[in-house]
Amino acid sequence: MTGSSRGPSGVVTLLTDFGTRDPFVGVMKGVLLAFDPHLRIVDLTHEVPPQHIATGAFWLARSFRYFPQGTVHVVVVDPGVGTARRALVLAASDHYFVGPDNGVLSSLMPHASEVRCIDRAFVQQELAARLPFADGGSATFHGRDVFAPAAAWIARGGPLADLGPPLADPAVVLPPSPPRVEIVDHFGNLITNLDWRSDCGDPGIEIRGRRLRWVRTYGEARPGEWVALLGSFGTVEIAVRDGSAARELEVGPGETLRITSPVH
Amino acid sequence: MTGSSRGPSGVVTLLTDFGTRDPFVGVMKGVLLAFDPHLRIVDLTHEVPPQHIATGAFWLARSFRYFPQGTVHVVVVDPGVGTARRALVLAASDHYFVGPDNGVLSSLMPHASEVRCIDRAFVQQELAARLPFADGGSATFHGRDVFAPAAAWIARGGPLADLGPPLADPAVVLPPSPPRVEIVDHFGNLITNLDWRSDCGDPGIEIRGRRLRWVRTYGEARPGEWVALLGSFGTVEIAVRDGSAARELEVGPGETLRITSPVH
Amino acid sequence: MTGSSRGPSGVVTLLTDFGTRDPFVGVMKGVLLAFDPHLRIVDLTHEVPPQHIATGAFWLARSFRYFPQGTVHVVVVDPGVGTARRALVLAASDHYFVGPDNGVLSSLMPHASEVRCIDRAFVQQELAARLPFADGGSATFHGRDVFAPAAAWIARGGPLADLGPPLADPAVVLPPSPPRVEIVDHFGNLITNLDWRSDCGDPGIEIRGRRLRWVRTYGEARPGEWVALLGSFGTVEIAVRDGSAARELEVGPGETLRITSPVH
Repeated sequence: MTGSSRGPSGVVTLLTDFGTRDPFVGVMKGVLLAFDPHLRIVDLTHEVPPQHIATGAFWLARSFRYFPQGTVHVVVVDPGVGTARRALVLAASDHYFVGPDNGVLSSLMPHASEVRCIDRAFVQQELAARLPFADGGSATFHGRDVFAPAAAWIARGGPLADLGPPLADPAVVLPPSPPRVEIVDHFGNLITNLDWRSDCGDPGIEIRGRRLRWVRTYGEARPGEWVALLGSFGTVEIAVRDGSAARELEVGPGETLRITSPVH
Repeated sequence: MTGSSRGPSGVVTLLTDFGTRDPFVGVMKGVLLAFDPHLRIVDLTHEVPPQHIATGAFWLARSFRYFPQGTVHVVVVDPGVGTARRALVLAASDHYFVGPDNGVLSSLMPHASEVRCIDRAFVQQELAARLPFADGGSATFHGRDVFAPAAAWIARGGPLADLGPPLADPAVVLPPSPPRVEIVDHFGNLITNLDWRSDCGDPGIEIRGRRLRWVRTYGEARPGEWVALLGSFGTVEIAVRDGSAARELEVGPGETLRITSPVH
Repeated sequence: MTGSSRGPSGVVTLLTDFGTRDPFVGVMKGVLLAFDPHLRIVDLTHEVPPQHIATGAFWLARSFRYFPQGTVHVVVVDPGVGTARRALVLAASDHYFVGPDNGVLSSLMPHASEVRCIDRAFVQQELAARLPFADGGSATFHGRDVFAPAAAWIARGGPLADLGPPLADPAVVLPPSPPRVEIVDHFGNLITNLDWRSDCGDPGIEIRGRRLRWVRTYGEARPGEWVALLGSFGTVEIAVRDGSAARELEVGPGETLRITSPVH
């Protein structure tokens, strides 16, 4: 019935668009530790482009499995904070997830054994029991006032059922996207959404009219050559040897790819 | 007599202007863990503008309560490092605080049950007992050589009294500031120092001649509209819907507000 | 025979050029916690300039001693990932080190009691035992697939000998460098590689034709004055009072210094 047969791992991850200049993430950690000072908290990233739900959804889907079973993953990319959008908690694939109902949790939905709508009154009461000064009244910072307390509740072994009722209406799901660039990484490589295991021939891939050669590692590329390879998160990556593909092609997230038939 | 009736929580927070490019913060954590490898350490932020005491003081005052009672908060925004300025440790509001005597700890002073001046010789001896190679002789990195050891001392249950004598002369206190912008946050919203609970009418607020409408959440603003709201840290925030208030108004920290009488 | 007579401390540090925009560092932490959810993980920095081995080597050598004995330090600045370059694990100076054989571990080699070449098949098997979906097949992300599992193996008390055979051929060692700027820090100060304890007179130091005055702390410099001082990591630092030395001199890492005879 729960996400993990082994119960919570005591590990919580955070994935937001809050940046690191302000202590927004820090106080979320304070709330988590006010519930249980022995939780281990890991930052996935806080540099999702502001309010860019697709980037948050991509990294969550591609990252969560590298954590121990029973980890609680908190995602706060939340343009609708303060509106009527729902707050969700769910158990899926032996992990737990907490975040807004705006599609950022899409990829988990088909695997969910339990999805609940977080009851703010319950969360507020639990928060106030630990931090009496925090009246939970903030309408703009649900990361601290709703999602962190809900995550802490699960991480210390509380039942999901206490957090709120099962979801009545279906959750928001992102529409499927065509083959495209999802992420420009720190090195300027282009990480796409194209899942590919080259068992029966590699597809031809073009971006901005440029045909790419398939390689297994960056080391196989010739200096200045444009290549495609199976990236470390299981999707196709596009790179130029010793350069920044993003800068040289002037492309960013959303740029579509042209797929031609596999070469046999 | 101590800051928390429950004793230290084993949690330590760090708030500095060190940035994250160099391992300055990392080695402070090394020192903390050399005293006790089981401490839990949380970054509040390390991107306080270099040597900007007011920003550090603002975030400390607004953030510390979200952590469990008995947390030790270390603040290093310290233009006077290496001069005769004192180093302080204090217990206030059921938390502990460590930092330079330059006003960054101002807001805690009225609530302090105990304020002491850190004795460098004692700290140096304790540091050398754990990291013999570290002679503590650095005149430029008190975050690592003075404040981290003092924080670790408290966090693992050592008495404040061992760290140094009670403060003889009053601590440095920042002068009161007029209603103004304190912080430009990651989203470009302007966080002010204006504490306001709108129990008896909202004040009129103007910035750069622009009158702001009061809303409860960002969602209530019309596209492009300028609004004021009660922010998540208890002070007034100024925002423009779907935009960056800081960029559009070209204002930053220090910009003053004009307050007109409440509308009844 | 091991790096520390007290055994592993349960602390792991990470030093990479991955940046913090993508969750690369986050998933490395996931892998570490999948081996042992009670490890304490500290970021040294992830902002080493991309593939800049000398910067990684400098900070590792200057930082590791501030952590408790038995800490495992993971360094991933790895332009050769996916090529035949070896992956190393070593015990030296009562600490453990894991990283690529490209010189980034140079400074530890003379102090190593044990150096081994990591056997990818063993690491892959241990990773798969904890994260069955992770087939370890990535050719591009050894931080996650090779170095993090090897570090976790040691940190939880596994013998180094299980990780692979003793090194047959010598490790790559960086050539000695002339007196030069290694790092431009967050404040614009220039951190050099010049080890100096001024026991018998300070040397004369010139940079870009500018002669520097020796001071003990930044506070001793006159406004606008150019000074040299013994920096907090044991090497000479160059600064201008109330300014950014890097910006005003337009120098960066690699800039050489001219040393003239000590003044007696």
